[in-house]
Amino acid sequence: MIEKKLAVKEIVLNALKEDIGAGDLTTESLSIADKEGFAEVVAKEDLIVAGIPIAKMAFSEVDPGLGCEILIEDGAAAKKGDAILVVKGRVNSILTSERVVLNFLMRLSGIATLTNRYVEAIKGTKSKVVDTRKTTPCLRILEKYAVRLGGGFNHRFGLDSGVLIKNNHIAAIGSLKEAVCRVRTNVPHTVKVEVEVRSLDDAKHAVEVGVDLILMDNMSLEEMAQVVDYCDWELLTEASGNVTLENIRHIAELGVNYISVGRITHSSGSKDLALYLR
Amino acid sequence: MIEKKLAVKEIVLNALKEDIGAGDLTTESLSIADKEGFAEVVAKEDLIVAGIPIAKMAFSEVDPGLGCEILIEDGAAAKKGDAILVVKGRVNSILTSERVVLNFLMRLSGIATLTNRYVEAIKGTKSKVVDTRKTTPCLRILEKYAVRLGGGFNHRFGLDSGVLIKNNHIAAIGSLKEAVCRVRTNVPHTVKVEVEVRSLDDAKHAVEVGVDLILMDNMSLEEMAQVVDYCDWELLTEASGNVTLENIRHIAELGVNYISVGRITHSSGSKDLALYLR
Amino acid sequence: MIEKKLAVKEIVLNALKEDIGAGDLTTESLSIADKEGFAEVVAKEDLIVAGIPIAKMAFSEVDPGLGCEILIEDGAAAKKGDAILVVKGRVNSILTSERVVLNFLMRLSGIATLTNRYVEAIKGTKSKVVDTRKTTPCLRILEKYAVRLGGGFNHRFGLDSGVLIKNNHIAAIGSLKEAVCRVRTNVPHTVKVEVEVRSLDDAKHAVEVGVDLILMDNMSLEEMAQVVDYCDWELLTEASGNVTLENIRHIAELGVNYISVGRITHSSGSKDLALYLR
Amino acid sequence: MIEKKLAVKEIVLNALKEDIGAGDLTTESLSIADKEGFAEVVAKEDLIVAGIPIAKMAFSEVDPGLGCEILIEDGAAAKKGDAILVVKGRVNSILTSERVVLNFLMRLSGIATLTNRYVEAIKGTKSKVVDTRKTTPCLRILEKYAVRLGGGFNHRFGLDSGVLIKNNHIAAIGSLKEAVCRVRTNVPHTVKVEVEVRSLDDAKHAVEVGVDLILMDNMSLEEMAQVVDYCDWELLTEASGNVTLENIRHIAELGVNYISVGRITHSSGSKDLALYLR
Amino acid sequence: MIEKKLAVKEIVLNALKEDIGAGDLTTESLSIADKEGFAEVVAKEDLIVAGIPIAKMAFSEVDPGLGCEILIEDGAAAKKGDAILVVKGRVNSILTSERVVLNFLMRLSGIATLTNRYVEAIKGTKSKVVDTRKTTPCLRILEKYAVRLGGGFNHRFGLDSGVLIKNNHIAAIGSLKEAVCRVRTNVPHTVKVEVEVRSLDDAKHAVEVGVDLILMDNMSLEEMAQVVDYCDWELLTEASGNVTLENIRHIAELGVNYISVGRITHSSGSKDLALYLR
Amino acid sequence: MIEKKLAVKEIVLNALKEDIGAGDLTTESLSIADKEGFAEVVAKEDLIVAGIPIAKMAFSEVDPGLGCEILIEDGAAAKKGDAILVVKGRVNSILTSERVVLNFLMRLSGIATLTNRYVEAIKGTKSKVVDTRKTTPCLRILEKYAVRLGGGFNHRFGLDSGVLIKNNHIAAIGSLKEAVCRVRTNVPHTVKVEVEVRSLDDAKHAVEVGVDLILMDNMSLEEMAQVVDYCDWELLTEASGNVTLENIRHIAELGVNYISVGRITHSSGSKDLALYLR
Repeated sequence: MIEKKLAVKEIVLNALKEDIGAGDLTTESLSIADKEGFAEVVAKEDLIVAGIPIAKMAFSEVDPGLGCEILIEDGAAAKKGDAILVVKGRVNSILTSERVVLNFLMRLSGIATLTNRYVEAIKGTKSKVVDTRKTTPCLRILEKYAVRLGGGFNHRFGLDSGVLIKNNHIAAIGSLKEAVCRVRTNVPHTVKVEVEVRSLDDAKHAVEVGVDLILMDNMSLEEMAQVVDYCDWELLTEASGNVTLENIRHIAELGVNYISVGRITHSSGSKDLALYLR
Repeated sequence: MIEKKLAVKEIVLNALKEDIGAGDLTTESLSIADKEGFAEVVAKEDLIVAGIPIAKMAFSEVDPGLGCEILIEDGAAAKKGDAILVVKGRVNSILTSERVVLNFLMRLSGIATLTNRYVEAIKGTKSKVVDTRKTTPCLRILEKYAVRLGGGFNHRFGLDSGVLIKNNHIAAIGSLKEAVCRVRTNVPHTVKVEVEVRSLDDAKHAVEVGVDLILMDNMSLEEMAQVVDYCDWELLTEASGNVTLENIRHIAELGVNYISVGRITHSSGSKDLALYLR
Repeated sequence: MIEKKLAVKEIVLNALKEDIGAGDLTTESLSIADKEGFAEVVAKEDLIVAGIPIAKMAFSEVDPGLGCEILIEDGAAAKKGDAILVVKGRVNSILTSERVVLNFLMRLSGIATLTNRYVEAIKGTKSKVVDTRKTTPCLRILEKYAVRLGGGFNHRFGLDSGVLIKNNHIAAIGSLKEAVCRVRTNVPHTVKVEVEVRSLDDAKHAVEVGVDLILMDNMSLEEMAQVVDYCDWELLTEASGNVTLENIRHIAELGVNYISVGRITHSSGSKDLALYLR
Repeated sequence: MIEKKLAVKEIVLNALKEDIGAGDLTTESLSIADKEGFAEVVAKEDLIVAGIPIAKMAFSEVDPGLGCEILIEDGAAAKKGDAILVVKGRVNSILTSERVVLNFLMRLSGIATLTNRYVEAIKGTKSKVVDTRKTTPCLRILEKYAVRLGGGFNHRFGLDSGVLIKNNHIAAIGSLKEAVCRVRTNVPHTVKVEVEVRSLDDAKHAVEVGVDLILMDNMSLEEMAQVVDYCDWELLTEASGNVTLENIRHIAELGVNYISVGRITHSSGSKDLALYLR
Repeated sequence: MIEKKLAVKEIVLNALKEDIGAGDLTTESLSIADKEGFAEVVAKEDLIVAGIPIAKMAFSEVDPGLGCEILIEDGAAAKKGDAILVVKGRVNSILTSERVVLNFLMRLSGIATLTNRYVEAIKGTKSKVVDTRKTTPCLRILEKYAVRLGGGFNHRFGLDSGVLIKNNHIAAIGSLKEAVCRVRTNVPHTVKVEVEVRSLDDAKHAVEVGVDLILMDNMSLEEMAQVVDYCDWELLTEASGNVTLENIRHIAELGVNYISVGRITHSSGSKDLALYLR
Repeated sequence: MIEKKLAVKEIVLNALKEDIGAGDLTTESLSIADKEGFAEVVAKEDLIVAGIPIAKMAFSEVDPGLGCEILIEDGAAAKKGDAILVVKGRVNSILTSERVVLNFLMRLSGIATLTNRYVEAIKGTKSKVVDTRKTTPCLRILEKYAVRLGGGFNHRFGLDSGVLIKNNHIAAIGSLKEAVCRVRTNVPHTVKVEVEVRSLDDAKHAVEVGVDLILMDNMSLEEMAQVVDYCDWELLTEASGNVTLENIRHIAELGVNYISVGRITHSSGSKDLALYLR
């Protein structure tokens, strides 16, 4: 995580500025400048913890004098009622940080927890759960981190770190084959080429011209089975589109390598956590 | 909306930088620099549209030559299959913008749509649905805008634009009365003072020392009824905590003025939208 | 003050970049890289000290090795000739920081000192001196802090943290009543509504439609007396416009709650301070 | 002015963000999104106009649809009651921009006007009025522009664009001669070397080791006369310290080349201007 | 290029701020505010043109009124004496922009021209010239663009867009095989894995555990021949280390797929261009 | 150096963000989070060291836990094979920092080393080697620092810190004399005026109207000799244009004060350095 702190720090600072703005009117008006104390962050429902380093960073940016003791680390499970961390120091600094810290923890734990449910649903199969670029604008680096904490894997980070030829790209060129050929010619050789297919025929065309990954987009189980069979682990396959907790195991059992699930980031919702001054 | 564009533009630029980084490898490799075309953004489920000006801004930052025709405006309902906007111009610019535009629309429409369900659920009562500070870090200005599009109302924007004395503040001082008195003495006279109460007694103490708003935190319907009755529209009341689509009408019928609902922002999930090149 | 440091740090960094730019040609050319020493910041006229934390921050950003001893704290009075703080460390770092530190202290002490004269002028009355938004662009957070140090109180911070319906707003709508009604309907319930009146009739209209604060704009003492009498402490009143050290006591004795004075920020001038290497 | 717009635009954007923050609650609540109109900016006292391009930039950043007609240009005199500019377009955009525009105009016109009084006071002499680095933190580029509009001249912009060896530098080295020698050896040859002297002897030492400019710091008229006589226009002289409207002509008549006046920037106060919706 | 403009614009603005700072003293002092004219940018030696869109952006940021006519496009060859572009508009804006525009063009044309010499040197072979991460800090996006203009290809953009297991990574783990295995397990499936080898044995180990690309680091022609033979176009090979114009053809004739050349970016030097006012 | 850290830190952060982006895929995938170790930065050819404080800053921004021991300081000579610094701490942090650290050191050492060769070439003469504004966009502050390390001197930093009237300025006005006169009238008195001449006549005109420095642009040795003779150390002279290691001594022996050499920054190339994990 350490190497990402440059981008992450900017996110945390922006979030603090957004909430604090010209100052915390309530806490400042309490006139408790030097009062020291401590508070616990508590899980109010079962969840996979995600965001502890962000919480520490936020507390520390508001007041370098705040110190945290971590009781449950990122990626571990917390039960309803468990204290996750204890923060000590000036009470007014704790109160001013509270909402931003919780907002990060709630959202990231929501993602880690939902991802984990998908991962558990395909336990024992050879498939892996991967994320998409359907993340919250400006928070992708954190959300992809939360996916990993939940046991998922990351797809490419952004448009500059991988090629995925989608239906719109194919439509723009008019032919899957031609689209793949153009991309292969122009793209750095260090980059894998993945292409979205909608049928076995598409997949065959893709294989002919040479791709590294086949993404099966919104295909039926039967159609996917054919493609997986055709690729036969020579070529990696990825299933995508309308994957749910109900159908993911069926997909995994087809032998696809990766199953990408948009909703682990775009619709995970938040897990409930609270901060209590002790 | 116009007056907010300084902060909003920064969010949109950050989101584009996050996704595009050093360049869109796929689209650039297609070698279609001058090809012109158009695409539609289509609702894939029923929703309240939110984020159109953000979409326009994103398209325009990627390529000032892109032009949008809006078919369904922000705040209006779209049915599954409806086209919401048409964007015309260089195809590669449209494709590079696609994901960021959709990510904004999906999240904001999710908030507007869920807010609207809460608003509909209390139709005919005098209560209003309001949001909280449980928003996505860095996106609050947009999410509070989406709440308004859904028919909800905004609570204070941040810590600097209103006072809300919560249980942690009271715990830090040791007494609700003392906390309120300190705040009233120090805070700008232009600012309203709201206090969280957990019982009728709390509310009575609050009224004695003088507050502008009473927030009933996680109280039962019976307890809230007593407080509302006691305040009798002389003092504005707000219900908060575990408000759901199931219980919101019961709360509204007590005659509370405001009902704040955290999940309209923290757990609304995204609505499904797609962009199709035509 | 601690919770505001995110915005304040940006101001201090901008000020240092502005003055230092590509480097302090004079001090660097002296070739005294390792020489240690100390310097005093001295008041060259009587003043209320304001800006000590800013001075410390500026010294520390230029060189984390500089240490400050504070002799007179923010908000206290200094006599001509008093040393206010002592800074120790590398001499070249002290010299490079000098001008920026003094520029902040001079301006903020000017504001605190002038504010204090207005506050003293109405001592014994129930009125409070408040500031306006007529502050130096980009320095509002610091100038409002200096007002508090001088014994004054803050009006709303900016356009997003309070409502003040001014004559131009009323002119845009055509009627005070209609303007107030529209605003009350649309504005968050956590926000107070203040309206500018120019006559007793205006004030009566405002009361009818319901406002939280009455601002009497450029009215005569006689007219203000009528409005204050009419509001009778049920509604808070604020006097504004051409308030001077000569007339402020007369206004205060009318019983108005707040007297806003633009010149404590827009025309306070600077107090003279100097830094002497010892 | 045009070449400076990169730095200036950042100042204007920061000022707008400071005042508008999350949005203009009052104007937005008026629900006048499409109403068009115009307003005048009017001088409420006699002044030298300064800041017109800044005002235009601020209006335009809030709403590119606002258009300005300039009635009195920067540097020209306006009489009390004169309209200086007319702005047309959406009324809500005009109202949201009002305070920031006026704050810039008031401060800059204050500087230009006061500078002009000093310039007028020495009319007919060969001396020039110059500014100092005692400017408002973060606004120096604008304040030095205002000085020029008032007929004054600029001293060096910052620490990186000229050398001024002050008493503290000399104290750090222990000898004026040694300080000057070190600086001359190390500083770029494109940079002038100026040194603060406090006596004729100091000036003689400075001349011996070779400087480009002599700054006479807080010296009596008699002492300055000796130095000016000694330098005899071979070396440029500058008077500094406690220059007032009362004594500046006496100084000028000594034949000094430059008279630097800190208070034209640090204590000019603001000139009164207002915006009226028509 | 269009999709990269967000990052590129920041570079151009930073470069302009760096050079212009508080203003162009020389040009402003010429008092030629409204004088219009035009200038040519001329090649003073043979070169491949690179940086035209950057030049246009810089002119336009300094003054939106400047217009450019492009005579020789990016990627085309210019002969000594050829005019490359003509810029028209305010003369002072042209003069203020001159140095920044030329600095970009000189450096980028240097890279494109040197790259082109390497590309020409292996004409007729199947190898491609690729760049490295040995680029100028903060200018990578531009320098990799210049490489493409010279006929070269890009290696990965940065640490986040590809995997290259180098000798230091292997040293940290202790074994090439173990290093590759760990990386393959943890890295997104969309990312290619490349590994540095120093012998045929290394290459064999790499193939066993499965990699996508083999980088031959500072190996002799004989050793490289063995590896290329072993990989037999089943696996892509890349030669790296001390590639010069003298030896590159020998390397290419071995049949390696890619030859990476650090000096096309880190030691290309600048090509000479000048701007002449006409 | 200390006083420059505000601008320098931004450059270092930008360079790290550019290279690391969303994270170092390779190093993170090695799963060596807590492994500690050390590495040496080694010169792979003879060079003058430049950039040590930048290297330390980069290591420290990536991981504050990394510590450096400096073996050869900035400005000293290193022989091929010499270790320059040792860095200790988490191995993954060292590996993530490697490329950015080396890129800075390679470029800056290239400049210091080449500058030093020019300085050595004129040893024993009275001339000084100075740099130009032909620096890498965004890195000027560092490159001018490297010039000083190599024994060179700096010309003005940018357009705002000195006047140089070049041929294009003269062309815009039509006469050298008129151009100089205008500039002298308008420019701050703290700024030196330098003018480009192309003949002895030009120089004579310049002297008549009064300038501080004469820059001889692309003149022959004979012509320069005449100008130097004419100025006779009363006026400082600077030679510029096509200065090479071959001809610089001939120029110096004419007795010119300064010789500006563009290629020490624009075409110095990089020196080879490497980091080895031990």
